[in-house]
Amino acid sequence: MSADKLLFTPGPLTTSATVKAAMLHDAGSRDAAFLQTIREIRQRLLALAGVKSSGDDPYECVLMQGSGTFAIESVISSAIPRDGRLLVLINGAYGRRIAHIARIHGIATETEEIVENSTFSAALVSRRLAAQPGITHVALVHCETTTGILNPVEEIGAAVHAADATYIVDAMSSFGAVPVDLARAHIDFLISSANKCIEGVPGFGFILARRACLLHAKGNARTLSLDLHAQWAGLESDGQFRFTPPTHALLAFRQALKELEDEGGPSGRAARYGANHAALMRGMTARGFSPYLAPGDQSCVITTFRYPADSNFAFERFYQALSERGFVIYPGKLTTEPCFRIGTIGHLCPKDIEALLAAISEVLEQLHVASAQAEAPVA
Amino acid sequence: MSADKLLFTPGPLTTSATVKAAMLHDAGSRDAAFLQTIREIRQRLLALAGVKSSGDDPYECVLMQGSGTFAIESVISSAIPRDGRLLVLINGAYGRRIAHIARIHGIATETEEIVENSTFSAALVSRRLAAQPGITHVALVHCETTTGILNPVEEIGAAVHAADATYIVDAMSSFGAVPVDLARAHIDFLISSANKCIEGVPGFGFILARRACLLHAKGNARTLSLDLHAQWAGLESDGQFRFTPPTHALLAFRQALKELEDEGGPSGRAARYGANHAALMRGMTARGFSPYLAPGDQSCVITTFRYPADSNFAFERFYQALSERGFVIYPGKLTTEPCFRIGTIGHLCPKDIEALLAAISEVLEQLHVASAQAEAPVA
Repeated sequence: MSADKLLFTPGPLTTSATVKAAMLHDAGSRDAAFLQTIREIRQRLLALAGVKSSGDDPYECVLMQGSGTFAIESVISSAIPRDGRLLVLINGAYGRRIAHIARIHGIATETEEIVENSTFSAALVSRRLAAQPGITHVALVHCETTTGILNPVEEIGAAVHAADATYIVDAMSSFGAVPVDLARAHIDFLISSANKCIEGVPGFGFILARRACLLHAKGNARTLSLDLHAQWAGLESDGQFRFTPPTHALLAFRQALKELEDEGGPSGRAARYGANHAALMRGMTARGFSPYLAPGDQSCVITTFRYPADSNFAFERFYQALSERGFVIYPGKLTTEPCFRIGTIGHLCPKDIEALLAAISEVLEQLHVASAQAEAPVA
Repeated sequence: MSADKLLFTPGPLTTSATVKAAMLHDAGSRDAAFLQTIREIRQRLLALAGVKSSGDDPYECVLMQGSGTFAIESVISSAIPRDGRLLVLINGAYGRRIAHIARIHGIATETEEIVENSTFSAALVSRRLAAQPGITHVALVHCETTTGILNPVEEIGAAVHAADATYIVDAMSSFGAVPVDLARAHIDFLISSANKCIEGVPGFGFILARRACLLHAKGNARTLSLDLHAQWAGLESDGQFRFTPPTHALLAFRQALKELEDEGGPSGRAARYGANHAALMRGMTARGFSPYLAPGDQSCVITTFRYPADSNFAFERFYQALSERGFVIYPGKLTTEPCFRIGTIGHLCPKDIEALLAAISEVLEQLHVASAQAEAPVA
């Protein structure tokens, strides 16, 4: 069996051999042993988030089949009632996608959009909420995978809470590695996916939600499959998914959660991703590449680099030559300038980053790219 | 590694070791090698269905993340325009689910419901369509997993076609093992899932559709994630899923398609499932169990048996004792009488059925069930 290429992407990611080996079993989706797996996953996710699952104001965990976008659509199309009004804070493609989903469902939707290399401030959000009464829900992407930027989720949560609105956080590419205190951040719905920082395989997403908010979602859903309240009620009533779960992906995820715990939880994982990111930044800037974001706004998840100005640089050839050497990087998604992305999450460590950097040096030489300097950014 | 329990269910199923081993790889979801896997799967599914993918009136294949129900909802919420009217032919829970989905999306929906142990006739469908003009779409479940009954999909297709309506067939638990000529049956949309007769693992469904019907679906969708036309257009434009695909489940499915071909395609698979079903019927009737359906209506996919009348029979204990011996059967889903189900699909052969039957004998003795005879069925 030849070694797989290493994935420097925002997911699906390189996973450990033991996570993949957990899929070498067929589980009966309604059998007791598998229901115990589902229960364990839901409990571990709540523990990982550091939230209470009982007592006053508890949180609940709902698993949802499909990609992360399915889980996002589940929340947007279930949490917001017919007379609700959503404000989406946008600094990248994933924020825009949330607004797009809301409009498809006929939800009254407002947007506050800022440039993709700047973060939202609590003051801006407070001003917008004060200027426009009637907003019932606010959605924010924690780590915008478009750029790798990290929005200040807790400060914005305080502003949303002060305006008495419900707070929906897309934590797709941050949960498990960027510690967040859900209760202190006043997060009502947090969405993430199996194949991001928990390092499972793709097949489902999950939602952590305040139980009171889930109860309010009853009857709001615009679909059957993505009905968040019904999915939760099903899991609570008999421990089962309403519709066939991705059994193998769930077995892999249980193993991935154990490995995350063995690594020291989110702080341990953040340390490794931080080391990966530091190695990448050192190596890329040494080679002349310009990162798109200011260092203080940058997550350890994924990093955007500007295309070199050298006319010998062609992204498709750069990508292909790296792929042939066993390294898969990721195209850019900016609306304003040409760029590419390198992810530093998944079952990767700094020596993998060093191997990627060595390959990048080789490929730059092969393409006769004398300098990886970008043109000066557009003012 | 202890052996997994054998799954006598309608899915997720017992799969081959080689199908599961295909998941021991991490693929980049946008990398060329994986895009070739997606292309190959889509082409093989069309070939398996025996439909043309070029020339006059070609068919297309769309893959959709989530369980089979997600794929059904994708078709129902995308194929039927705002001014359409759907007739759902119902003889079980999955037909009822289609009508439920349609009503959630505000689609004008009519139903024709018959008892769960009878099949639809083309004459009944023709009469209904003549009596009620304005029906634009007709939906039928080919093999109703509720009972295992097989509806005459080709004859009904002729009636639907004569009325100039679009024909939607839920072939979830039949496709790949019950040969159907899509063109001759006038099927416009056929839906099935990875973890049924093709013996892959769960994580996505697929839709085979006449290209002309897909083109008509543009702009109809009521969701983002389940937009069938957009999903198809995405696959066509760059070969990629719009949103993260279940990469490991797709690698497993490619292997499962090869193994189906090695077995001689749908007719080879039907022969094995037929042998499984024959062994089950022989053994169960010899033990006194009464099948719910008349033999002529029964598929080789799953079989419903009435509860024994003996007061010592308790399904939960029966299920649990079989599960402890390594055999997972399935509860019933009839609205009218207590029953259970035994599936005969998946990576199982007649010797597995014989092993199950031996365990059933042991368990009946353990429970002191003297006779497995059911009460006379309700007239």
